[in-house]
Amino acid sequence: MDTRSNFHQSLEELQADLLKMGTLVEEAIYQAVKSLARMDVKMAEETIEQDDKIDQMMLEIEERCLRLIALQQPMAGDLRVIGMAMKIVTDLERIADHAVDIAKTTRRLAGETLVKPLVDIPRMADIAKEMLRDALTAFVEKNVARAEGLAEKDDQVDKLYTEIFQEIIGLMGTDLSVNRQVTHLLMVARYLERVADHATNIGEWVIYMVTGQRKDLNL
Amino acid sequence: MDTRSNFHQSLEELQADLLKMGTLVEEAIYQAVKSLARMDVKMAEETIEQDDKIDQMMLEIEERCLRLIALQQPMAGDLRVIGMAMKIVTDLERIADHAVDIAKTTRRLAGETLVKPLVDIPRMADIAKEMLRDALTAFVEKNVARAEGLAEKDDQVDKLYTEIFQEIIGLMGTDLSVNRQVTHLLMVARYLERVADHATNIGEWVIYMVTGQRKDLNL
Repeated sequence: MDTRSNFHQSLEELQADLLKMGTLVEEAIYQAVKSLARMDVKMAEETIEQDDKIDQMMLEIEERCLRLIALQQPMAGDLRVIGMAMKIVTDLERIADHAVDIAKTTRRLAGETLVKPLVDIPRMADIAKEMLRDALTAFVEKNVARAEGLAEKDDQVDKLYTEIFQEIIGLMGTDLSVNRQVTHLLMVARYLERVADHATNIGEWVIYMVTGQRKDLNL
Repeated sequence: MDTRSNFHQSLEELQADLLKMGTLVEEAIYQAVKSLARMDVKMAEETIEQDDKIDQMMLEIEERCLRLIALQQPMAGDLRVIGMAMKIVTDLERIADHAVDIAKTTRRLAGETLVKPLVDIPRMADIAKEMLRDALTAFVEKNVARAEGLAEKDDQVDKLYTEIFQEIIGLMGTDLSVNRQVTHLLMVARYLERVADHATNIGEWVIYMVTGQRKDLNL
C-alpha cells in the first residue's frame, strides 16, 4: 500500500474513533439525565467515572492527529479535515463535562424528592442528543444541509430553556431547600442548552470544512 | 538562518500571539463584569462585539499551528508544545465566551436596579483574571510550580461561588422580577467559576507539557 492510501486509511480510522467517542458522549448525557430523573445516585457515579475514559480518548485522538500531520504532511484539504477533527473532539469533551455536571447535580440532590417530575429537561436532553448525532453524521458525510438543520433544533432547545427558566423562577419562594433544588435544576437546563450549542459548533466546523465559509448556526 | 532557527522563531511568534489573545480575553472578562456592576449596556455591547476578534485570532493561531506542524515536522517535544498551544487557545476562547455570557446578562438586566451592589462577583472576577495571567505566565516560563499554584486560587473561587449560591437562594422569594435578577446574577457567578476552571485547565496542560504527567488542579 502506498503512503497516500495509508494516509487515507488513517483518516478513516480517525473518523471511526471520533464516532466511537461521540457514542460514549451521547450515552453519558443519556445516563446523566436518567440518573437525575430517577434520583439514582449509583447511575450518576458511573457517569462521572466514565468521564475519565472519554478524556483519555480525547487525548489519544488529538495526539494521533498531530502525529498524522507531522509524519504525513497532508495537503491543505486533508489538513483541514484533521484540524476540524481536533475541534470536534474538544466539543465532544465539553459535552461530556456537562454530563458530569448533570450527574453531580443528582449527587447533590440525593435523597430529595423532586418538587415536580422532570418533563422538559428530559425533552431538552432528547433534542440535544439528536443534535449531537446529526452533527457527527454531518461530519462523516460532509453533509452541509444536515449541519444547517441543526439551527432549527437549537431554536427548539433555546425555547425550552426559556420556558424552564420562567417556570422555575415561579417555583422559588421562601423555602430555602426548594430554592436550592430548583436552582440546581435550572443549571441542568442550562448545561443542556450548552450541549446543544456544542452540537451546533460541530455543525459549523463541518460547514467550514466543506465550504470554507463561517456560518453561525446559533442565532 | 537555518530551518531549525526559523522554526524556533515561529514558535516564539506563536507564544507571543497566544499572550496577545490572553490579554484580550482578560480585558473582556474585566469589561463584562464592570458593565454588569455599573449596568452599562454600551460597555456590554462593546464586549460582545470584541468577541468576533477573539474568535478570529483563535482560528488564525490554530491554522498557523497546523501549518507549522505540516511544514516543519517538529520533533516530539516541539510537537507537544504546539499541541498544548492549540489546547490553550481553546480554553481562552471559552473564557471569552463566558465574558460574552456576562455581558449579555448586563443587556438582559438593562434598566433594572440591582437588588444589592455587586461585591463578591467582582472579587471572583479578580481572582479568575489573576489565575488566567498566572496560567499564561506558567506556559511561557514552562513553570510547573506556578501552574500548581492555580489549585489554591481555584479553591478560593469555588468557596466564593458556594457563598454566593447560599446568599442568592436566600434572596429569592415571591417577587418574580427579583427571582429573575438574582438567578441571572448566580449564572454570572457560575460563569466566573468556569473561567477559573479554564485557567486551571491551562495550568494542567503546562504541567503535562513539561512533565508528561496529568495532574488534576481542580479538586
